[in-house]
Amino acid sequence: MKISDLQTPALLIEEEVLDRNIAEMAAALPGERLRPHVKAHKCTSLAKRLAAAGHSGFTCATIRECEGMAAAGLGTDLLLANEVLDTRRLGALVADGARITVAVDSPETIQAAVDGGVDEVVIDVNVGLPRCGIAPTQAGRLAELARSQGLNVRGVMGYEGHVVGLVDGAERAAKCKASMELLLAAHADVGGDLISAGGTGTYAINTWANEIQAGSYALMDTAYGQLGLPFGQALFVLATVISSSQDWSVGDAGLKAFGMDHGKPALPGSDVWFCSDEHVTFAPPRPVGDRVRLIPAHVDPTMAYHERAYLVRGDEVVETWPIDLRGW
Amino acid sequence: MKISDLQTPALLIEEEVLDRNIAEMAAALPGERLRPHVKAHKCTSLAKRLAAAGHSGFTCATIRECEGMAAAGLGTDLLLANEVLDTRRLGALVADGARITVAVDSPETIQAAVDGGVDEVVIDVNVGLPRCGIAPTQAGRLAELARSQGLNVRGVMGYEGHVVGLVDGAERAAKCKASMELLLAAHADVGGDLISAGGTGTYAINTWANEIQAGSYALMDTAYGQLGLPFGQALFVLATVISSSQDWSVGDAGLKAFGMDHGKPALPGSDVWFCSDEHVTFAPPRPVGDRVRLIPAHVDPTMAYHERAYLVRGDEVVETWPIDLRGW
Repeated sequence: MKISDLQTPALLIEEEVLDRNIAEMAAALPGERLRPHVKAHKCTSLAKRLAAAGHSGFTCATIRECEGMAAAGLGTDLLLANEVLDTRRLGALVADGARITVAVDSPETIQAAVDGGVDEVVIDVNVGLPRCGIAPTQAGRLAELARSQGLNVRGVMGYEGHVVGLVDGAERAAKCKASMELLLAAHADVGGDLISAGGTGTYAINTWANEIQAGSYALMDTAYGQLGLPFGQALFVLATVISSSQDWSVGDAGLKAFGMDHGKPALPGSDVWFCSDEHVTFAPPRPVGDRVRLIPAHVDPTMAYHERAYLVRGDEVVETWPIDLRGW
Repeated sequence: MKISDLQTPALLIEEEVLDRNIAEMAAALPGERLRPHVKAHKCTSLAKRLAAAGHSGFTCATIRECEGMAAAGLGTDLLLANEVLDTRRLGALVADGARITVAVDSPETIQAAVDGGVDEVVIDVNVGLPRCGIAPTQAGRLAELARSQGLNVRGVMGYEGHVVGLVDGAERAAKCKASMELLLAAHADVGGDLISAGGTGTYAINTWANEIQAGSYALMDTAYGQLGLPFGQALFVLATVISSSQDWSVGDAGLKAFGMDHGKPALPGSDVWFCSDEHVTFAPPRPVGDRVRLIPAHVDPTMAYHERAYLVRGDEVVETWPIDLRGW
C-alpha cells in the first residue's frame, strides 16, 4: 500500500527515524537502564521494537496498558508507575504469570495492592511535581508498612515531570539533580534495587536513577523537539487539503486527531492558525487535494485518539500498527 | 450496576439533565428545524433519543459518523457538513439506501461527489469563519457547476463558528445576523430548500437559517456553560482520588480523558491546577478513594477519547452507551 492510498487523517510513523531513535537511546541507556514508558505510544507493535533493542522491562500508566503488554508477551517486568485503588485486574495478570509492580504512596494504595493480589510495589516519592508520591522523609515508613503487609518493596520511583520539559539545559540539569537528591534520600530509607525516574528530557542528565522511564523519544513531538535532543521527529498526522481560499487552506485533521494541551500542531513552512474538531486552518494556501504532514505538539494524547498508525518508508506503508493500549 | 462499581476514569451522562436538554431544544426547534450534529457526542444511542424527540435529519462531520448512523437505522437524511475528496464510502451508503448529502465548496469536491456516487450536495458558504466554504458571491456559480454535473443541489450551509461561542449576547446576535445575511445572499443565487447553519450558541437567535446544526446542547461543557443557555450540564468525567498531600489531591483522569483545546476541566468547589496524561491535580485536597465529577471544557474532543459513556440516574448506571462513531 502507498501512503497516497490512505484515508486521512492518518498517523504516520517514519520507520527510519523511529529505528534511529530507538538505536540512539539503546546505545545511551542499554537494556535495563531504560524502562520505556508505553503511555507515550500505547502500541505493542512499537513496544516489540523496543524489546528487540534490548529493553525487557516497561513502564505503564494504566491497567489497560499492563493488560495489553502482558497479552502481547511483554509482561516479564511491568511497572505501573501510577497509584491504583482497585488492583484486581492487575492481580489477575500476576496470577497468569506476568510480573507486575505497582506504585504506592499511601496506606490505601498499599492495602489495595494486597487486596488485589499484587505482590510487588515501589514507593512513589514526590520529587517536586505536585502530583502523586509521598514526601521523601516519609518514604521509609511507608516501605515498612508495605513490607509488614507482605509486599516486596522493589525500591523507589520519583518522576521529575516539572523538569523534563525545561528548555534551558542548565536549569533542567540543576533541577533534575535537586529532584534526584530527594529521591536518593528516600531510597536510603526504603532500600530495594530500583531507583526509577526520568523522561525523554532528562534521560542523558539523570545519572542518579538506575532506570529511566522515557517513552516520547521514540516518536517525538514539537515540545520535546525544542530541547536539542538527538531524536528525530518520527510521528506525523497526514491530512488532505479539503478546502482552499486565496488566503488559507483547510486540512482534514483537527481537535480529534491531536492532543492540544501543548498547543497547536506544526506544519513546517506554514503558519497553523487554529484547529476545529475535524479541521486545521493554515497559511499560505495550497491546492485542494494536496497532502500535508503535521507534527503534534504532544505525542501521548495524540496517539490516544487514533485506532492505528501506519509505519512508512519512503512512499510505502510497510506495516499497520494498532494503537491497542488505548482506554482504561 | 451502581456508579460506585465503575472503574475510572468514566464518562457519565446524567439522564435527567440529558432528557431535559433534549426536550428544551425540541420545543424551541421542533422536528426538521433542528438537524442535530452528531460530532458533539459520536454516539448512536444518544442520537436515537434525539430521533425519538422528533428530529429525523442529522449532521455529521466524518464519513465514519455517516456510516455508523446509517448502520444504526438513522440514515434517512444525513448531511455531511464537511468537504470530502474521496466519497466512495459515502456512495456505498447511498447504494444501500441511506440519504447522504455532502458539502461542496470547490470544483474538486463537486467532482469527488460525482465520482463517488453521492447525488446530493449543499453549497458550503464561508460566512466569516476562516475555514471551509466558498465566498458568498461565488456560490451561485458553483451551484450551476454542480447541477451541470447532474447533482441535486439541496441548498446552502454556512457555519458561523466564529460567533457561537461569543460570551457577549448582543455581539453574538449582531455577528450572527451579519453572517446569515451573507448566507441568505448566497442562497438567493443557489436556490434549494436547505439553509443550514447554527450551533448551540446561536440556536435561539439564528432565525435566518431554516435548520440549525446544534449538537453540544444535549451534553454541554464549561465553554457553552458561560453563555446563559437553558441547557444543563449532563456530561461528567468520574475520577477517583488516587493520591493526596496536605495541599492537593490527584484524580485518575487526565489529558487522555478530556479534550483540552478549550482549557482544563472544572471541578465545582475546587481549583484545578493542571492535567497530566492520566492525572488531574486539584485543591483543596480530599481523602484518597473519594470520587469526583469533573466537567469537560469542550464536549466534542472529550467524547472522542472514550469507548463508552454511562447513562446514570441517581446512584444507578441505567445504560452503557458505546461511543461508536469515533475514528474516521
